[in-house]
Amino acid sequence: MDFTPFTVDDYRARMERAALAASAAGLAGLLIAPGPDLTWLTGYRPPAETERLTLLVLAEGREPQLVVPALEAPDAAKAAGAPALALRDWTDAQDPYALTAPLLGGGRFGVSDNAWALHLLSLGERVPDAAYAPLSRALPMLRAVKDAAELERLAAAGAAADATYGEILKVRFSGRRERDIAAELDALLRRFGHEQVDFTVVGSGPNGADPHHEAGERVIERGDMVVLDFGGLLGGYGSDTSRTVHVGEPTAEEQRVHDIVREAQQAACAAVRPGVALQDVDRAARAVITEFGYGDRFIHRTGHGIGVSTHEPPYVVEGEEQELLPGMCFSIEPGVYLPGRFGVRIEDIMTVTEDGGRRLNATPRELAPVE
Amino acid sequence: MDFTPFTVDDYRARMERAALAASAAGLAGLLIAPGPDLTWLTGYRPPAETERLTLLVLAEGREPQLVVPALEAPDAAKAAGAPALALRDWTDAQDPYALTAPLLGGGRFGVSDNAWALHLLSLGERVPDAAYAPLSRALPMLRAVKDAAELERLAAAGAAADATYGEILKVRFSGRRERDIAAELDALLRRFGHEQVDFTVVGSGPNGADPHHEAGERVIERGDMVVLDFGGLLGGYGSDTSRTVHVGEPTAEEQRVHDIVREAQQAACAAVRPGVALQDVDRAARAVITEFGYGDRFIHRTGHGIGVSTHEPPYVVEGEEQELLPGMCFSIEPGVYLPGRFGVRIEDIMTVTEDGGRRLNATPRELAPVE
Repeated sequence: MDFTPFTVDDYRARMERAALAASAAGLAGLLIAPGPDLTWLTGYRPPAETERLTLLVLAEGREPQLVVPALEAPDAAKAAGAPALALRDWTDAQDPYALTAPLLGGGRFGVSDNAWALHLLSLGERVPDAAYAPLSRALPMLRAVKDAAELERLAAAGAAADATYGEILKVRFSGRRERDIAAELDALLRRFGHEQVDFTVVGSGPNGADPHHEAGERVIERGDMVVLDFGGLLGGYGSDTSRTVHVGEPTAEEQRVHDIVREAQQAACAAVRPGVALQDVDRAARAVITEFGYGDRFIHRTGHGIGVSTHEPPYVVEGEEQELLPGMCFSIEPGVYLPGRFGVRIEDIMTVTEDGGRRLNATPRELAPVE
Repeated sequence: MDFTPFTVDDYRARMERAALAASAAGLAGLLIAPGPDLTWLTGYRPPAETERLTLLVLAEGREPQLVVPALEAPDAAKAAGAPALALRDWTDAQDPYALTAPLLGGGRFGVSDNAWALHLLSLGERVPDAAYAPLSRALPMLRAVKDAAELERLAAAGAAADATYGEILKVRFSGRRERDIAAELDALLRRFGHEQVDFTVVGSGPNGADPHHEAGERVIERGDMVVLDFGGLLGGYGSDTSRTVHVGEPTAEEQRVHDIVREAQQAACAAVRPGVALQDVDRAARAVITEFGYGDRFIHRTGHGIGVSTHEPPYVVEGEEQELLPGMCFSIEPGVYLPGRFGVRIEDIMTVTEDGGRRLNATPRELAPVE
């Protein structure tokens, strides 16, 4: 997939927007850890958050500062956003918190949700008059509204997930282990352009009743319901799709539960439009499932945001009063889970348009038969 | 590889030992996040640390409590250590911090280094009279001394890494991309028993001068020095080995720099015995490299601990006065990096014995020729 790469100007604009938003929210600045926030703001993707401090410090009207271990500085300097920030490197014999403290001063800072406790507490010792708030609560909407270039990538990731589903319907399920199907999903996602695969859930029979079951040694049998939930990153942006398939002919109950989930998913998707509260989208799905008597078997929220990560704000969950804004992207994935028996989940990524919502997944949502 | 699995008694003993150590260190208890600490204490390995709170609360004389999202509770209940703890599950519409707060009371808690800021700050709001210290500073030696069953696994991981190196020497390097060699390292580690590969560094020519370069598109040429650094998990325990190879005949300078690093690595290994401070092992390597004029080109610490993770305390670094104890396991990996030209690194995992040290890697450390 060929996308126009994000430029240093794109990253500079994002950093400036973030610093302004922080200031408007009464924050002295933002402390950004390796992970989705740092990737989105700078284009820099260190292999992992580690015990060595990497931290981007943003504050309105000041040049962004990226504290980075000396031995990772060459990689950081190659990031597309690097020319828009100052690198502050430190070696293993130095104290990176002492180096970082003067960049903060005091006040209240928004901190990446996934920043390590080690780093936050160590910095806290050096900057006793600073306070911290998790970024997903301090600035929950920072990355939530996607621009056209981001939507293009999310749509491409969704199309690749759709192509993956189209192909997986053709493979044999019965007599094979869940992890064999998972390996095929992984290979298909990559074949259709994903550079990273984050999850390939294959929950067959009773395993489908455990929403976070990944894929195991269980051999899939004729008569099984099978929950498929797969996704990863393409062009740096996420896919995340679920469909439930059946090996052979479903029973009347299996078909009925699937119909209920499909109706719930459709109801939630139909509820998406600007100005609606996120919790009302959750309620739309939950009302259908509750009406048919399975309310206590829908044991998770309806969805989560997606962007440079596959789980991020906004969350489609009871208690979330934030209103939908055009450009938000999130999953709609109600499910029903019958312990010891089977599960059903149907999931699409949606984006909010000016007057409604648009799905980024287009494959059929009927209970599909597989061999 | 068939190891005797760790039992619920093993995990119970670890949790009790940790709670006692916390108490002895003046802590009210420990807050353990998904990752190496949780794996080591309970055998439970959630796929990732996420925005949904999973937290093990340990305190002396109290039953361990594992707060876990309801939809992950079935997996948590299957962990080997689960019978030794109480599961506290929560659903998406509940506030997990309100559920966790009563488990803490007040006082000072040790917190997993990699616990998310989101969780620590959210808990802090609910438990205003608690304070927190990163576990690697509060109880740095908690996982540092390995028992016989752990050493057996680390030795097996080391042997598999050695077998990998033996095979990679036989493959063609020249004319192939770094990432092709990295893919072969990955496949070999898995073939020799690794269930997870964490890194496959192939730093050819000038890329070798960047210690954290992974592997890229560069085509390896005749005349290149190539740094190889690879490892992962086998039986749940880590491998991490580096060797530097040469495509064709090295120049006198390349050979000389390699000889210096080899001598430095040997000096550090020879310094390992109980009672020696960790920083003195670092100094032993650094003294050799400095003596030969490359001190400012050895730009990282000499090593890091290894166990259920591939980077953990104890760190072999200037300023670390902790004394070596029998059963500690860590890397010894000095290097010299000449920007724009080449790098050399040689790394073995060592364990401290009753009267010295023993390497868990046994492949030759000479500059090996490859095709």
